[in-house]
Amino acid sequence: MSSSKKQRIVILGAGFGGVYTAMHLEKFLHKKDNVEIVLVNKENYFVYQPMLAEVVGGAVGLIDTVSSLRKLLPKTTLFVREIESIDLQKKIISLSPLFSHSTYELEYDHLVFSLGTVTDFRGIPGLHEHALPFKTLADAIAIRNRIIDVVECAASINDLSLQKELLSFVIGGGGFSGVEVAAELNDFVRALIKKYPTLNEDLVRVVLVHSQKRLMDKELSENLSLYAQKILSKRGVEIRFGQHLTSASLNEAIIDHKETIAAKTVISTVPSSPNPLLEKLQLPLIKGKIKTSSFLLVEGYDNVWALGDCACIPLERGGFAPPTAQFALREGKTLAKNLVAYIRKKPLSSFHFKSLGMLGALGHRSAVAELFGHFKFSGIIAWLLWRAIYWLKLPGFDRKIKVAFSWLLDMIIPIESVQLKLNPTRGIIQLHYEEGEIIFKEGDVGDYLYILISGTVEVIKDKDGAPYRIATLGAGEYFGELAILNEKRRLATVKCATKVDVLALRKTDFGALMANLESLRKGFEETGKKRTEALEKLHPFGKGKIA
Amino acid sequence: MSSSKKQRIVILGAGFGGVYTAMHLEKFLHKKDNVEIVLVNKENYFVYQPMLAEVVGGAVGLIDTVSSLRKLLPKTTLFVREIESIDLQKKIISLSPLFSHSTYELEYDHLVFSLGTVTDFRGIPGLHEHALPFKTLADAIAIRNRIIDVVECAASINDLSLQKELLSFVIGGGGFSGVEVAAELNDFVRALIKKYPTLNEDLVRVVLVHSQKRLMDKELSENLSLYAQKILSKRGVEIRFGQHLTSASLNEAIIDHKETIAAKTVISTVPSSPNPLLEKLQLPLIKGKIKTSSFLLVEGYDNVWALGDCACIPLERGGFAPPTAQFALREGKTLAKNLVAYIRKKPLSSFHFKSLGMLGALGHRSAVAELFGHFKFSGIIAWLLWRAIYWLKLPGFDRKIKVAFSWLLDMIIPIESVQLKLNPTRGIIQLHYEEGEIIFKEGDVGDYLYILISGTVEVIKDKDGAPYRIATLGAGEYFGELAILNEKRRLATVKCATKVDVLALRKTDFGALMANLESLRKGFEETGKKRTEALEKLHPFGKGKIA
Repeated sequence: MSSSKKQRIVILGAGFGGVYTAMHLEKFLHKKDNVEIVLVNKENYFVYQPMLAEVVGGAVGLIDTVSSLRKLLPKTTLFVREIESIDLQKKIISLSPLFSHSTYELEYDHLVFSLGTVTDFRGIPGLHEHALPFKTLADAIAIRNRIIDVVECAASINDLSLQKELLSFVIGGGGFSGVEVAAELNDFVRALIKKYPTLNEDLVRVVLVHSQKRLMDKELSENLSLYAQKILSKRGVEIRFGQHLTSASLNEAIIDHKETIAAKTVISTVPSSPNPLLEKLQLPLIKGKIKTSSFLLVEGYDNVWALGDCACIPLERGGFAPPTAQFALREGKTLAKNLVAYIRKKPLSSFHFKSLGMLGALGHRSAVAELFGHFKFSGIIAWLLWRAIYWLKLPGFDRKIKVAFSWLLDMIIPIESVQLKLNPTRGIIQLHYEEGEIIFKEGDVGDYLYILISGTVEVIKDKDGAPYRIATLGAGEYFGELAILNEKRRLATVKCATKVDVLALRKTDFGALMANLESLRKGFEETGKKRTEALEKLHPFGKGKIA
Repeated sequence: MSSSKKQRIVILGAGFGGVYTAMHLEKFLHKKDNVEIVLVNKENYFVYQPMLAEVVGGAVGLIDTVSSLRKLLPKTTLFVREIESIDLQKKIISLSPLFSHSTYELEYDHLVFSLGTVTDFRGIPGLHEHALPFKTLADAIAIRNRIIDVVECAASINDLSLQKELLSFVIGGGGFSGVEVAAELNDFVRALIKKYPTLNEDLVRVVLVHSQKRLMDKELSENLSLYAQKILSKRGVEIRFGQHLTSASLNEAIIDHKETIAAKTVISTVPSSPNPLLEKLQLPLIKGKIKTSSFLLVEGYDNVWALGDCACIPLERGGFAPPTAQFALREGKTLAKNLVAYIRKKPLSSFHFKSLGMLGALGHRSAVAELFGHFKFSGIIAWLLWRAIYWLKLPGFDRKIKVAFSWLLDMIIPIESVQLKLNPTRGIIQLHYEEGEIIFKEGDVGDYLYILISGTVEVIKDKDGAPYRIATLGAGEYFGELAILNEKRRLATVKCATKVDVLALRKTDFGALMANLESLRKGFEETGKKRTEALEKLHPFGKGKIA
């Protein structure tokens, strides 16, 4: 690489690992290093996970737990986009289309994986369809909205058994996040119900299902676990140890294939798996996580790095770094230091860090804490400690003020049940185009199937620089299915010959229909074959055949 | 009506009119009147419309403009539901299903219509599909999110013409809400853009299209209009007088059928029309609004009342009451007084009220005001007056504190671009059922079409109390289409014989596909005929025919 060309570091994912890597790179890099830092993330904010459960109960405002990435990282270039694909050979990241149908190609010199994990409900019937995950801000808000919905609905009906179903909640997973969300949900529901004269607390049932023998067994010592269990039980949470959520439907949760709990709301915090993007790459993986050296370099590469929950990082004392925020942010510092050392051709240093302790909130002004392996706290002291520590770690001064205000308001203003409802996304979208507009171009990503409601479009294909009009399509005809069926880029351009109205079906929706509606599949496959042939040979097809 | 039976007043809609009616009914009614107040509304909150534009710019928090209805109206029974249908003869309101497929029937003695208006984009091509409305809280948040989306996208690309398209905004309608949203949007975009080094203000274009000769011509006097126009122009808003938004597509807005403005964002505040529920009823309508007497009783009825934007209320001095919040809340007081008088068999009084004045915010600490027809203010004094008056009128003490905090934070904390992204609704939903569960019952509302992915269901019909199993359906087969095609209730019950996975297509999505995909329509219609016959005669149909 010539020294005059600016090197580019691309960081994928803005969780604790990605954000702290960028933060330290901004600090360590000098202008003369001639390096550009780029961060790719789906959202333009960083979510402060430890406070997410408080969103459910409303102790902090809906967006108080998030910080603007641009403000946190002023020297970093941010791409708020989804990742379409990664090419480690060509060193290119393709970003998904946004307000257009074409990808954006981003070259890199160094790549940092901090993609975390994704919620994965595969393998447990009904979970994907009916269980609410608890991982992102959107998840927390969805759980809050659901709680308000079921309470409102229960309050307005006379059917006792439906009321009980509505006010029963099953939470799968008794780790930190499961316990925190169970505690907040339980407090919120029981406080809310008091405002509804037609309801009473006896109707409420909160069940926490945990496969192990004690709560937060991976995170806390036994006597803090027992304290947490005592607190939750006293507040009315029914805890099931050594049991598993094995299925869920619209109306019930099934425990260990036999017991049925009638409940409209099932929350699962258990299964989270590596980002599916990683599976397609040639990376050394251990249980789906990227294997790195102690320098955080990915094995077999000298320009690919990884950290956080998507990485498998060896520790000096044996074993691997645990997937916690504490570790991720220290890993970020080490990774940034090593990246800078690498660029400056200095020696790298190994990652080492010993956990300071663990803190878990239990809602309702109580928490459990374990510091330096010795000190253990519980109750309101642990809770105050929890708030103090997390508040100090909250990135950005503005956010600190906002959260402080929210906590203050939460003390003086009683509980609220106001929901935030956004406009629902329509499943099948209708679109309008003016004459001459291009619906998609040859080479674009195949994201939608289109059905013509009115107007005429022309299908145009380029060969050796000359455009061939292959077909003219009218009302009732469809187009765009080939790229979806064959998982390829668009094979032709579609241009509006008149004003045009179309229905657009998302790729996933179209795929689901095709896979299950035989009559639809047959028709599409037959037409598809003819069209592929026609396109390959530049034959005309469709109604108005024009060569 | 016997005096021992409790009378029920049902109020439809919780805008200013509905909420103030309920508020005053709570005040005027005594226990011995033996009357129950019921309020039906889609959301569990009241939206304080005058501050909605501030949500776009972020001066108030996302849910600061809404108040909990239960808190505002402690003695009123609230139903957070959609209205399925209204029967004025039987005096029954059917509420849409929630967490089940059956409606809830609500009887009334007195009915109050305060349904307001709905956004109606019919008649202007592309508006329904591509223009953002500005009416509800969800609309305001959607506009804010869109602004952040286009700015983020523009910042991350090199294509100048796409950047310009992304940063162009066309707003249709120069009444109060159009001007307020244009002002807030313009301020927000221009402030935001300064944070992005790759963008500059020259790329931004905000166009306000108004059919009349001056802004807010219906609401303000000419010299205040001119002041507002001057302010907006100075801040960079391009105002088009005497022009109309005649079409919109994904990428452009068309003005007066000829001029094309390339813009990814089109906002329309113009067309709002009466709630479509009214069209189906036998009510005296004037331009779609319910004609009332000066007592607010609907003509031809002695138990149906109407107020607010959905009502046409004669004024003493001639003409009709204008559709403003000021009038709606005074109408609410009169309506409540008259309803109580009617129940107590006392004489009714006519509605009369003279507007106190008009206030309009222009963003960026400026506003225009006109009070008692004489005093006119503009600039920061009008803005302070605007804030003071609306803050005083904000219902509920908690909300007052929250808004005050937000305004305070807005002064000390710089502008933020954090978005709130909720989980997208999937278009075609997948559902899982356990053996023995009922997917829908005979007589339920036809809301979804189901396609079986795996498992077996039984179609069961009741005749004279005895159940007949009409069919057994398996993977690849569909059910539930008849109720949708014939717009009837479910003709049979569908029960799961095994574990079952289905795809569910919303009624509207299924309808759109059926109307436009001929191959699909034919298949469904043929099967539909056979099935209807089979159901009527209790004939068996389908794979596993069982009599």
